[in-house]
Amino acid sequence: LSGSPGIISLITDFGDNSHYVGTMKGAILSVNPDTTIVDISHGISPHNILEGALALKAAYSYFPYRTTHVVVVDPGVGGPRRPLLVTSERYLFVGPDNGVLSLVMDEIEAYTCYHLTAAHYFRADVSPVFHGRDIFGPVAGWLTRGIRYEHLGDPVDDPVRIAFPKVAVSDGQVEGEVIHGDRFGNLITSIAGRDLESLPGSGAFRCRVGASSGVTVPVVTHYGLVGKGSLCALIGSSGFLEVAVNQGRAADIPGARPGLRVAVARG
Amino acid sequence: LSGSPGIISLITDFGDNSHYVGTMKGAILSVNPDTTIVDISHGISPHNILEGALALKAAYSYFPYRTTHVVVVDPGVGGPRRPLLVTSERYLFVGPDNGVLSLVMDEIEAYTCYHLTAAHYFRADVSPVFHGRDIFGPVAGWLTRGIRYEHLGDPVDDPVRIAFPKVAVSDGQVEGEVIHGDRFGNLITSIAGRDLESLPGSGAFRCRVGASSGVTVPVVTHYGLVGKGSLCALIGSSGFLEVAVNQGRAADIPGARPGLRVAVARG
Amino acid sequence: LSGSPGIISLITDFGDNSHYVGTMKGAILSVNPDTTIVDISHGISPHNILEGALALKAAYSYFPYRTTHVVVVDPGVGGPRRPLLVTSERYLFVGPDNGVLSLVMDEIEAYTCYHLTAAHYFRADVSPVFHGRDIFGPVAGWLTRGIRYEHLGDPVDDPVRIAFPKVAVSDGQVEGEVIHGDRFGNLITSIAGRDLESLPGSGAFRCRVGASSGVTVPVVTHYGLVGKGSLCALIGSSGFLEVAVNQGRAADIPGARPGLRVAVARG
Repeated sequence: LSGSPGIISLITDFGDNSHYVGTMKGAILSVNPDTTIVDISHGISPHNILEGALALKAAYSYFPYRTTHVVVVDPGVGGPRRPLLVTSERYLFVGPDNGVLSLVMDEIEAYTCYHLTAAHYFRADVSPVFHGRDIFGPVAGWLTRGIRYEHLGDPVDDPVRIAFPKVAVSDGQVEGEVIHGDRFGNLITSIAGRDLESLPGSGAFRCRVGASSGVTVPVVTHYGLVGKGSLCALIGSSGFLEVAVNQGRAADIPGARPGLRVAVARG
Repeated sequence: LSGSPGIISLITDFGDNSHYVGTMKGAILSVNPDTTIVDISHGISPHNILEGALALKAAYSYFPYRTTHVVVVDPGVGGPRRPLLVTSERYLFVGPDNGVLSLVMDEIEAYTCYHLTAAHYFRADVSPVFHGRDIFGPVAGWLTRGIRYEHLGDPVDDPVRIAFPKVAVSDGQVEGEVIHGDRFGNLITSIAGRDLESLPGSGAFRCRVGASSGVTVPVVTHYGLVGKGSLCALIGSSGFLEVAVNQGRAADIPGARPGLRVAVARG
Repeated sequence: LSGSPGIISLITDFGDNSHYVGTMKGAILSVNPDTTIVDISHGISPHNILEGALALKAAYSYFPYRTTHVVVVDPGVGGPRRPLLVTSERYLFVGPDNGVLSLVMDEIEAYTCYHLTAAHYFRADVSPVFHGRDIFGPVAGWLTRGIRYEHLGDPVDDPVRIAFPKVAVSDGQVEGEVIHGDRFGNLITSIAGRDLESLPGSGAFRCRVGASSGVTVPVVTHYGLVGKGSLCALIGSSGFLEVAVNQGRAADIPGARPGLRVAVARG
């Protein structure tokens, strides 16, 4: 509803039990004390680039126009991987060039990548093991102050990309896999709501959980449409199919883990 | 000390390891980027309405006048339960109509409930499984912009109520139960400080932990008045009796769990 | 880059699963609703004063000039220990007088301590078990409003000090110990980067982990300089030597715990 150049969101694998996140926020506020900093998640599994990329993909578009999203999942910190800025009409993204920003590149029409090299916009002493505090955070602070992108580094056209887990559509079914679980024990899959719409026919969707011998459950709109404790599938809040138990935990069924096959067909 | 229409507090069962809280904050800031958002807790046990209601009851009155408190513990999301706004002179409350807001209704003199129905103040696409992001958060944002309550929905007079765990006063003793534990291993009970004041006589209070065969410990004002590692009881910071161990964990004593009987008498 | 009298940072042992942190923030905002509050950590082990002091030491200097740092690790709450304000040119510190603020006193050139006694700047009803909400938070709020220090209490010159774990330099080696682990499984030690610079000679540093029979690993600048899964040592982001495994967890090696001996020598 309004432009908000002062908002920075953070996704990291730093966890909640150390000073790392707070120190990074101090470094941001030292550049621009008027910034509003919003935590998306610091619970990304250590070094799990795909998990960080998925959290960004799920969350970024709900933020105000011109929010700067900073993602620090950075197992190669201190090595040759480049620090990156990705600019688009609606959002800015800052993080290491290891693919963690690439799933949003997949869905943004036009964007430009910059290799962050202008060290005078970093902290004076850059630790080789904490670029969140010394490079990414300060650069995000400067972006909220309206700095021109070209002052931060040169454009590059070969950012590292990672692949979103594949979905196969054939024989009137969509087949994908469980990507991760959430706190409620819901199993989020790689199957998008629009994948289901591509299936021919008009019968109700049913979801097979597991390989061909797996159980089959109804695809519903919300948990309460099956009995308490019953398994179901539904399109979750990020637009992806998830396997759930009404007021229970699908993550506790046998075989529940990332990679578990899930398939949806009609009737 | 001053009016602060721009402050929103959050209590949810979303946990700290997913993007859900951050995405909800993005949705709030998309309505009002100048809002100050304060986390009270996202560690409510999944679907535990009483625990959410107790956290709100413990915290709400310490916030500035006109703070909007949003509570999302919502096992019935997507079903027939109503989204609710509760207004009072000092505070506003937003959340599902499942009782999670009802313990504060018990202690506020005058309040009005509204059934939130004005969909143009929600996000354009409301997920049936994430009303925190798509209804409660945006409505809180509009409230900080000063929207008139009647524009959000019609008043209702039958909000769902839940019962605070009962306390029995008889024979010169107050009997209640452990409600939950905190991080320090303190066991917070249903007995309020003012329940003790109702006991006749003037002797010092003593607290029996467990049924009639339980241990009896002194009621003190702060932990350091018993030896390190010793059990005691005291009136905690929310005004309720808690069982504690000085620099230790009462939660580790045998039988420590919600529902454990606790009784206080004089002498 | 600019003065920011409105920023307050928080370090506590309250954890993330209770309402305590949020309630304390409400109390701060009730004094000054325009304050920006930044969490450094609420994951300090309960009652662990040294751990809180180390988090403050690692983080405080990255915040804007005039930030007020509040640290509440307070096993003696309600007892005779004094509530304290420490002022210096660049930062203010508020917390209990139990040593939790003393490691920063060790490295600030000039500071003054005040015993906080002016109860009209506390909440009206001070709980004997929650001075974070009722004393430290409100006083921090008043500091961001520019209150004169002398109005809060009288100067004192005998604050409680705690000792930073000792480092021994002799025979061309620096010997210290593991202080704590972080989320990545890195083992942070008491040996500072500048301790290494004091060693004579010019050969590369090598680090012995454990007593004399322990393993010896290279001291590198960043994780990626050893193979994936290999042990190394490096100067971490807070300036202290840490033992790490590239994309793995040093905390999982046998004997990893606070107190484990670590020594560095050349060649």
